[in-house]
Amino acid sequence: MKKWIPIASGLVAGFVAATISFADFSAKTTTEAASNTKSDAEKVYVPFGQKDDYYLFASGGHSGQMFIYGVPSMRQIRTIPVFSQDSATGYGFDEHSKKLMGDYTWGDLHHPAFSETKGEYDGKYMFATDVGNSRAAAVNLETFTTKDIINVPNTSGPHCAAFVTENTEYMFLPTRFAVPLEHKYESLDDYSTKYRGVMSAVTFDQSKEKLNVAYQVALPPWSYDLSDAGKKSSADWAVMTTYNTEEATTNLEINASQADRDYIVLFNWKELEKMVKEGKYEDVGGQKMIFPEKQKGGIYLVPVAKSPHGVDVTPDGKHFIASGKLAPTMTVFSFEKAFKAVENKDFAGERNGIPVLKYESVMEREVNPENALGPLHTQFDDKGMAYTTMFISSEIVKWDPKTGKTLDRVPVQYSPGHAVAAEGDTVSPDGKWLIALNKIAKDSYLSVGPSHPESMQLIDISGKMKVIQSSPVNPEPHYAQMIKADKIKTIEVYPKDEKNKDAVYKKDDTKIVRNGNQVDVYGIAMRSKFIFDAKAERPDVIEVNEGDHVRIHLTNIDFDEDITHGFAINSYNLNMEVQPGQTNTMEFVANKAGTYPLYCTNFCSALHQEMTGYFLVKPKK
Amino acid sequence: MKKWIPIASGLVAGFVAATISFADFSAKTTTEAASNTKSDAEKVYVPFGQKDDYYLFASGGHSGQMFIYGVPSMRQIRTIPVFSQDSATGYGFDEHSKKLMGDYTWGDLHHPAFSETKGEYDGKYMFATDVGNSRAAAVNLETFTTKDIINVPNTSGPHCAAFVTENTEYMFLPTRFAVPLEHKYESLDDYSTKYRGVMSAVTFDQSKEKLNVAYQVALPPWSYDLSDAGKKSSADWAVMTTYNTEEATTNLEINASQADRDYIVLFNWKELEKMVKEGKYEDVGGQKMIFPEKQKGGIYLVPVAKSPHGVDVTPDGKHFIASGKLAPTMTVFSFEKAFKAVENKDFAGERNGIPVLKYESVMEREVNPENALGPLHTQFDDKGMAYTTMFISSEIVKWDPKTGKTLDRVPVQYSPGHAVAAEGDTVSPDGKWLIALNKIAKDSYLSVGPSHPESMQLIDISGKMKVIQSSPVNPEPHYAQMIKADKIKTIEVYPKDEKNKDAVYKKDDTKIVRNGNQVDVYGIAMRSKFIFDAKAERPDVIEVNEGDHVRIHLTNIDFDEDITHGFAINSYNLNMEVQPGQTNTMEFVANKAGTYPLYCTNFCSALHQEMTGYFLVKPKK
Repeated sequence: MKKWIPIASGLVAGFVAATISFADFSAKTTTEAASNTKSDAEKVYVPFGQKDDYYLFASGGHSGQMFIYGVPSMRQIRTIPVFSQDSATGYGFDEHSKKLMGDYTWGDLHHPAFSETKGEYDGKYMFATDVGNSRAAAVNLETFTTKDIINVPNTSGPHCAAFVTENTEYMFLPTRFAVPLEHKYESLDDYSTKYRGVMSAVTFDQSKEKLNVAYQVALPPWSYDLSDAGKKSSADWAVMTTYNTEEATTNLEINASQADRDYIVLFNWKELEKMVKEGKYEDVGGQKMIFPEKQKGGIYLVPVAKSPHGVDVTPDGKHFIASGKLAPTMTVFSFEKAFKAVENKDFAGERNGIPVLKYESVMEREVNPENALGPLHTQFDDKGMAYTTMFISSEIVKWDPKTGKTLDRVPVQYSPGHAVAAEGDTVSPDGKWLIALNKIAKDSYLSVGPSHPESMQLIDISGKMKVIQSSPVNPEPHYAQMIKADKIKTIEVYPKDEKNKDAVYKKDDTKIVRNGNQVDVYGIAMRSKFIFDAKAERPDVIEVNEGDHVRIHLTNIDFDEDITHGFAINSYNLNMEVQPGQTNTMEFVANKAGTYPLYCTNFCSALHQEMTGYFLVKPKK
Repeated sequence: MKKWIPIASGLVAGFVAATISFADFSAKTTTEAASNTKSDAEKVYVPFGQKDDYYLFASGGHSGQMFIYGVPSMRQIRTIPVFSQDSATGYGFDEHSKKLMGDYTWGDLHHPAFSETKGEYDGKYMFATDVGNSRAAAVNLETFTTKDIINVPNTSGPHCAAFVTENTEYMFLPTRFAVPLEHKYESLDDYSTKYRGVMSAVTFDQSKEKLNVAYQVALPPWSYDLSDAGKKSSADWAVMTTYNTEEATTNLEINASQADRDYIVLFNWKELEKMVKEGKYEDVGGQKMIFPEKQKGGIYLVPVAKSPHGVDVTPDGKHFIASGKLAPTMTVFSFEKAFKAVENKDFAGERNGIPVLKYESVMEREVNPENALGPLHTQFDDKGMAYTTMFISSEIVKWDPKTGKTLDRVPVQYSPGHAVAAEGDTVSPDGKWLIALNKIAKDSYLSVGPSHPESMQLIDISGKMKVIQSSPVNPEPHYAQMIKADKIKTIEVYPKDEKNKDAVYKKDDTKIVRNGNQVDVYGIAMRSKFIFDAKAERPDVIEVNEGDHVRIHLTNIDFDEDITHGFAINSYNLNMEVQPGQTNTMEFVANKAGTYPLYCTNFCSALHQEMTGYFLVKPKK
């Protein structure tokens, strides 16, 4: 009986879908015919004077940064420094960004996620995690700059995040690696008892632009791979895949691929929030830690084919689809069925103190397209159709989650990890474009030595899928999100901030102040000179004594779009940027006596070459 | 009489040029007609399965790196880390690159130059300078990796370099900033007597892949802007522009733009080489320094319109063309006339002890295209025609150096600094493509906040000039060179190096060796695991004591193109890369007790996620 229900509802759903589909196809014909008169070249070409329709925000992986592209042209417009130093913008050199980066000079930026309002990308912020040094960051999309970074305690490698809830109440950061709580030294012989895979619920205060760990959950010592937040009727829930439920401690290549089934963790964050309010947690290193084996409720396990990678919630919020990296199958699960199973306590026992739902009670459909191998991650279009990356058979398969029917497939070159659809993680994807994030470029581009770029391929999904552009990319996009261009509202210049005591907006207010061996320079940068002390014989010269502690506060008083100045001191390993209207500070010890030119590093005008001065360091007697 | 000579020769040359030009145009008609049937979109589109025709190597400016693009698609294929850290490749993190970078974590990479053989790019090496911290670097083009970096003593900001001689005998590094020799502290009141603009003659030993400062020249305390080596009959000579011959020490925007004429420095490097051999130099901080006011000969000054930027030698080696940044004029000078003037000692006195050639004796032609403003830099095509960037009037002007006649012009968006033509600095440019390196993108692309990207525009110069693609670029290409794709011969994997005592190619040879508190790990990376000690219970685990000095030597034994592994230890701020066949070392002190996962950071296979292990640090008692 149990088996009969999903099949029947599948048939009914399939029939409805087919009808919708048919209607849509007929409606689409005119547009398609028009669009099909364009060659592939013309489809991706954005002539001067026109702009791209979408922004693509791609994780930069171990580059630590975020890569911004325009779609459909696939031109990279910007690299936003997030976790790694970037001398081009002085990130990690000026005081503000040095403080943000803390003890680290690099990161491994994995899954980016836009802030959402009512399940739609709202274009305000972008979040991302650092698998390398266990951090999370928030990027402001008015300025395209990183505003906050936090270390996430008790965790190691928040891989399958960030993903945000429908109104950005939380982003959840489950970790890829299990470690002892508080990173203590513990033998791997005690792995199953002493190690944990901790998930962190992180909030973001938009008014203060601050991230905060609200609470954490001490999950079993497994690896958590990918995840997604629920939508609409499943909005209070989230799902994440696991592997190494074998709890292997060495040679995971073999030992973590033994069990036929791993799990999807299904949790209700409203319930976890309630637990925290009721004090149902323990203090672990200053964090509120929920132990699911002690504080029951809100967290469940759903069995799934071995070592799944992606788990993705359909735009209507009714289903979640897991992809079995080592199995050839996508599995469609029903939230509604899961809720019923939870309500009825329809459990198949427990694992590590967490109730396991019966596979058959939650599973809606197993989908296994012919010869498709290595399904990893699924995106959706405006008709609710699914697009799954096949890592092993190097293709994208389009299929109908309501029927399981394969609708289309297209080869990609090669080994796609993730794919990203236009507005693909929202409640209303746009269709039109899908980009395959391919791990292997092989011979797709001119060779650059033994290590090749990764490759992103743009697929036109408005009709029969077709790869229409290939774009090499630096290491390494793990995931990306694509947003409608008009949702991003940038500012043109930084507004004056009269409260900022480091800022100077008038030439006459520039000054060099000495207190003992502390020297503070309050200067301005403008086309095409530096003024550190307008009253001095040489206003563009800073003279200090060897050993002085120097702070240079610099304000760019060119309130003109795109007029950015740089500031570097020769041989002092210092460079920072001041964008139009911005004030920035550089702090260092003048530990080398001598004469060092200083100059503007960011081309600003015809007399940019003349925008120089000197930093003189009088030697100790 | 003197004035009459250049005008007449100009007329004759113009007539010859016109004839050649006519012949060429008729020959070109068929090709053009064929190529003109393609739309702009189709001209720049390189479909999957085909490759770009040219590599573009663009300086990355204060990013410190080199940007590699394909032309005509204008797709960025790679960033090569040179002067700044790059966590994507572990550059500045592994021991080899940390040593290369020395005390610096960033640089300001200006003019790149290919190694040359007989005046042609030979595709073997790329050189570049660091204006920020006064260094020079050599990049190997078999592997696209930086092989050597040297600090250049006595200098500050080698801006107008690297440029190499016809057979890469030397690259000359003149500096943008004057400083006291050995960077001593000296008052700016003594600028004219105590400061110098030093030019360094740097050699590169290809067998050892080592740069070396052969000798230096203590030039007057001026700024040296751009430069070029002679070709063919002028091969023993080189030219460079100057500004601030006023020797102003403050507010250069105004004070360095007073004199109507600055100079081109014209020097014979064979003569300088001879001087050094004859001991005609002084030792300054361990360097062989030629003082031109004492050791006469080999260096001359040519007056030129105020504050010139570029000076470029024509492909035939007969002329050099200076562009007067603050004058609207390009000036064509004749090497032959200069040689005669030198021979006849036809001097107009001396400046700072250096003979000044008479302007009229060397000048061939002043070219002043109508309404063109801010000429900066000139490139050439296969017909010897010149293409000059106009920074102020935002356009490229095509003109005939033999007649001065303006042939064509095209607007670019906006403010082009340099331009680069296909094989443009060789004795035989290719024509076809010209790329304008524009300083201001303004509203050309989707906005990324107050600071915009720079913009490169591809111009089809096979017929009437036309901008056919615009490509945003990260800060900041100052110059670039474009090479035929088939000249670059990369290797696919690093060959085994049995002499490398850090390398391990067999699993059984892996080991962890302790000597006191020094721990050396000899490990391998392979799809999809790390093996540090094959005989251990957990071969992928490294255990050390808190405070141990750890060296991890890792060899990638996947001898397969494009199979690069990464290696990071969580929360230890460490990441490096091992390309196929490569061995690399990471060195650090285990100063944090506890349990830290280690993992492969560069996606390598379907089981990449499982390529992990642990780094256990036993706490001090």
